[in-house]
Amino acid sequence: DSSLKVFTLNSNPHLAEEIASHIGTELGKSSVTAFSDGEIQINIEESIRGCDVYVVQSTCGPVNQHIMELLIMIDALKRASAKSINIVMPYYGYARQDRKARAREPITAKLVADLLQTAGATRVISLDLHAPQIQGFFDIPVDQLVGVPILSEYWRQKGLEDIVVVSPDHGGVTRARQLADRLKAPIAIIDKRRPRPNVAEVMNIVGKIEGKTAILIDDIIDTAGTITLGASALIENGAKEVYACCTHPVLSGPAIERINNSPIKELVVTNSIPLVEDKQIDKITQLSVAPLISEAIIRVHELQSVSILFD
Amino acid sequence: DSSLKVFTLNSNPHLAEEIASHIGTELGKSSVTAFSDGEIQINIEESIRGCDVYVVQSTCGPVNQHIMELLIMIDALKRASAKSINIVMPYYGYARQDRKARAREPITAKLVADLLQTAGATRVISLDLHAPQIQGFFDIPVDQLVGVPILSEYWRQKGLEDIVVVSPDHGGVTRARQLADRLKAPIAIIDKRRPRPNVAEVMNIVGKIEGKTAILIDDIIDTAGTITLGASALIENGAKEVYACCTHPVLSGPAIERINNSPIKELVVTNSIPLVEDKQIDKITQLSVAPLISEAIIRVHELQSVSILFD
Ligand SMILES: Nc1ncnc2c1ncn2[C@@H]1O[C@H](COP(=O)(O)O)[C@@H](O)[C@H]1O
Ligand SMILES: Nc1ncnc2c1ncn2[C@@H]1O[C@H](COP(=O)(O)O)[C@@H](O)[C@H]1O
Repeated sequence: DSSLKVFTLNSNPHLAEEIASHIGTELGKSSVTAFSDGEIQINIEESIRGCDVYVVQSTCGPVNQHIMELLIMIDALKRASAKSINIVMPYYGYARQDRKARAREPITAKLVADLLQTAGATRVISLDLHAPQIQGFFDIPVDQLVGVPILSEYWRQKGLEDIVVVSPDHGGVTRARQLADRLKAPIAIIDKRRPRPNVAEVMNIVGKIEGKTAILIDDIIDTAGTITLGASALIENGAKEVYACCTHPVLSGPAIERINNSPIKELVVTNSIPLVEDKQIDKITQLSVAPLISEAIIRVHELQSVSILFD
Repeated sequence: DSSLKVFTLNSNPHLAEEIASHIGTELGKSSVTAFSDGEIQINIEESIRGCDVYVVQSTCGPVNQHIMELLIMIDALKRASAKSINIVMPYYGYARQDRKARAREPITAKLVADLLQTAGATRVISLDLHAPQIQGFFDIPVDQLVGVPILSEYWRQKGLEDIVVVSPDHGGVTRARQLADRLKAPIAIIDKRRPRPNVAEVMNIVGKIEGKTAILIDDIIDTAGTITLGASALIENGAKEVYACCTHPVLSGPAIERINNSPIKELVVTNSIPLVEDKQIDKITQLSVAPLISEAIIRVHELQSVSILFD
């Protein structure tokens, strides 16, 4: 359909190109640069009047820059009479600030939802939101894609044997269960607890891991503390070897060093966040979510163009 | 009044401290830091329930970082039950993107207004908005303060003689007139025009400047091209000496080098934007807007606390 246009911003241009080529189109012509003082300057260099526009932008680091690029792009598209403005945001920045854990904290994940809608977004397509509740922060449709099938297909093809899928904490058990189902494997849970305040955490392992090949799974790996400590605990408790995977490789601060020094044999991630500079280490395998996202865009677009009455 | 609280963010903490001390209070306790991945983390460390809160933040560079800090702070204050959230934004970033000059351009100055309101701002206090129309971008009260009295008082005390106040372009004539009135001086205008496309601009000077002491005035000095070319044109056309002043010293890119190499004897600016690192050169004098802003806050607060029915 000629009225579908895909634009990229600066966070993930390779993924955007892959998506456009899967869909069988080219990226819309635009430039996103900076004035001398650092203010963002956006030029959309082709008409988008009446089009369904898809803007690809993960709000990974530099997160504030990437959020402002996105908001300004949405404003420009809105004023240029786009029919719909669909935000393809594989990684949703600030998703971990999704509740008031302490008094007088912001809920930045909700703020970001409000900002996107205020700018003029009409739909959001995202991948493995840190909390599914974030969908409820929006009053526009949110399509949440899931990374587990891509990760499980990789592990299946690798042909590891006698697997146990391990959640590195209590919060990730559902995700571990989903991967385990697809691999027809049992699960285990790393059960951290602090016996008394100011005493080091104890890592218990719930489930049988001895002599097995463990695959740790999480949604986000940021500083990699949880996952690498978990890997060591698994080895200490008799696991044969440890692999790990996640959807969103934030990999900030000491992450790469920790992963390199850990017993993790291979870390499998997606390209929701690009691995820049020295983050492309041998241990890390990156799988593309472009086919998954492209299919979602095509499905959304077919529905939009026949004007159905509900989502 | 004990219910008035002043908070600072990271763009202009010295100005915020000066303002608090003028008002006779201390800065509210808060910290604005970053998580390992660069996401902003804000902690408000005292109760602000039921208070009239004033947040001091110029959205100068790094502009996107400073805007997001402000939005997240507003969100936190709103959720912590502030009675009113007043944004003290001496420099309003993105003010020059205030209209569609070309097709498919964003109007980022309006977007920023919408974002501030969406986050929860209830009032804005700003200084010399690049275009007064920006007040109309808001549906909340906007107090616009004026820098000319501070600049004119400095020139008056300096005691220069046989002055002419010069606008560096057509857009700034009203501002030049305001300064000239206060200094009881005539005005002149640098009248740039391009005789044909792709031919260099010609600098005509409208008004008498020969043998006189010229004072150039603008609202923003960014890369300093306009002001330094204007200064050279004034000297070439017989001005005795050239001074310059502006409210907002953005001073990006080649600005400092251009000013150093220009015939400008002294550049007078305000502290709406702090002069960081190598921008504190001998030629530049910085005047404080803290007394002006403090008075505005006190006036606003007195009105708010007696609950008048209109602004
Ligand atoms: N960018 C971030 N980096 C590290 N921790 C964060 C970040 N954003 C929020 N948090 C904290 O992470 C916790 C929420 O994470 P979770 O329990 O996994 O949902 C909260 O205590 C937040 O304060
Ligand atoms: N941060 C910026 N730096 C330089 N030029 C800008 C900036 N923002 C907007 N502009 C341009 O400045 C012009 C408006 O400036 P003015 O005519 O002084 O109001 C427009 O053509 C804008 O595209």
